[in-house]
Order: sequence, then C-alpha cells, then structure tokens
Amino acid sequence: MTNEFSYVALGLKVWKAQLDRADKLFGGLSSEEVLREIAPGRNRLLYLWGHLTATHDAMLPLLGLGERLHPEFDGAFISTPDKSKADIPSDDQVRRAWNVVNAELWKGFEKMSWSDWLQRHTAVSEEDFAKDPSRNRFAILLSRTNHLSYHLGQAVLGLK
Amino acid sequence: MTNEFSYVALGLKVWKAQLDRADKLFGGLSSEEVLREIAPGRNRLLYLWGHLTATHDAMLPLLGLGERLHPEFDGAFISTPDKSKADIPSDDQVRRAWNVVNAELWKGFEKMSWSDWLQRHTAVSEEDFAKDPSRNRFAILLSRTNHLSYHLGQAVLGLK
Repeated sequence: MTNEFSYVALGLKVWKAQLDRADKLFGGLSSEEVLREIAPGRNRLLYLWGHLTATHDAMLPLLGLGERLHPEFDGAFISTPDKSKADIPSDDQVRRAWNVVNAELWKGFEKMSWSDWLQRHTAVSEEDFAKDPSRNRFAILLSRTNHLSYHLGQAVLGLK
Repeated sequence: MTNEFSYVALGLKVWKAQLDRADKLFGGLSSEEVLREIAPGRNRLLYLWGHLTATHDAMLPLLGLGERLHPEFDGAFISTPDKSKADIPSDDQVRRAWNVVNAELWKGFEKMSWSDWLQRHTAVSEEDFAKDPSRNRFAILLSRTNHLSYHLGQAVLGLK
C-alpha cells in the first residue's frame, strides 16, 4: 500500500463513519418523527435529510462519477428554505434517494485511484486548477464530510 | 511538492477553514450572548466553546506535540454536562484558552512532515497500531475537524 493510498483510505473511512451515523439517525425515523424541527421554528429533520441527499447527489458530476440522479431535489432542499414549499419529496422518496445516491457514490469511490483524488473537480476550470491544485476531488470529499457532520450535529437535536 | 504533502495540506486547509468559522462565531459573542442556549434546554454556547477548547487541548499530547495546557477544562466541559456545575471557566478564560491552544496546535502542525502524520497517535499502543495503521495522526486531524463541524452546526443555532 502506498503512502498516498493511506491518506485516501483515511478520508474514505471518515466519510463512511459519518455516513453510518446519518444512516442510523435518519433511517430509524418514522413518517411523523421526520417532520420534527431540530429546534422551535428551525429546519425539520426531513429537510436536513433531503438537503444532504441533494448535496451528495451533486457530488456525482463534481467528482466525474456520472450524471445526477435527483436534480429535482435542489428546488425543495437547496435553493429554498424549509417550509417554503407545500410540495416536497416525501420521507419515503428521500429515504430511497439517500440510499441510492450514497451507494452510487461509494461505487465510484472504490474505482478511484489515489491519483484520481488529486485531479481537479469539475466545478473548477483547468486554468484555475493550474493556479490552485488544492481544488481537487479529495478537497470535495473532506469538505462534504464536514458538511455532513455539521448537519448531523443539528439533526441529533431533533431526536427525543 | 510530493503527493503525500498534497493530502496533508488539504487536511490542514479544511481544519483551518472550520477553525476560522469557529473564531468568527464564538469570538464575536458578548458575555451575555455566550450564555445563550443553542435550543431551549440544550447546551449553552459557552459550553460548546469550552468543549471544543478542551478537545483541541487534548490533541497536543495525542499528536505528540506537547503537554496539555488546560487539563482543568475537562471537568467543566467534557466529563460533565452543561449546567451541572456552578463554577466553570468564564468566557474570558475560554476565549484565552481557545486562542492559545489553537495557536499551539498550529505551531505543531507546521513542524510535522507528511510522514509524521502517518505515525501512530499516542492513545494507541504499538501492537494495536501494527494491526491497524489507520489509527494515525492524520485520522485524528480528520476526526477532530469533523467534531468541530458537528458542534459548529449546533452553535450557529444559538445566534440571533
């Protein structure tokens, strides 16, 4: 095992650990519980779950792993705040999308070599990447893992 | 720049980004604001700030960077829940400790080579490390960065 691979393996291990926590937290909620707010007047658990799903879905093209599976989630969970739209995906739809998206990401991660992770992500141009090679795929992995932790810290407040 | 160094630089960049967010969030609070709860009946901002300070302080020996500077914080912010002790460090004491501890950590990080990060952290024995080399210092960096993000997601709820 190369040193480079050690770092990638650690990044993936921490991603997986946070994802397992999220699976356990959101996966165990009933259709009523998922509508709980994390604090009075704040986001509902369903919104956070959908928001994380949409964010992870957007990682597929960003990391060059394929097309988005649920671009329609953005309208409900990214570009508008919670409780501003009457018609958002149900908890069953979010649950299914969450599982499919994260499985697809993991399948992609497993095929990536350590050097793939140091390539530019698709939201940065070749010119900008030449100036700042830290705008790579590993940076996306680390920042999205922290994004997940950030919202997990909030979601846990919505539990009993 | 070696590839190994690229990964370490990214890990440090993400740590620094979260730390900057925390500096901005906690650093701007008045002595009254710091006593706000993140949600009714939940932890106060001061407790989260002290908790993060104690956790970061404990990284010094864990990463082999030196002795702890504020082991006395554990009693107030780690081993007991918020509002269970009358006498805990003031916001001024937490602010000072937070700044000193994070500066000391950063000084240590700057001296570490990429291969230092793949060495075992001090809470794992040599035998256990031989069995699982992922229990290294880079793993501590990534997991503590996520710990910081987790509580930042909560702390932001305590702001106006």
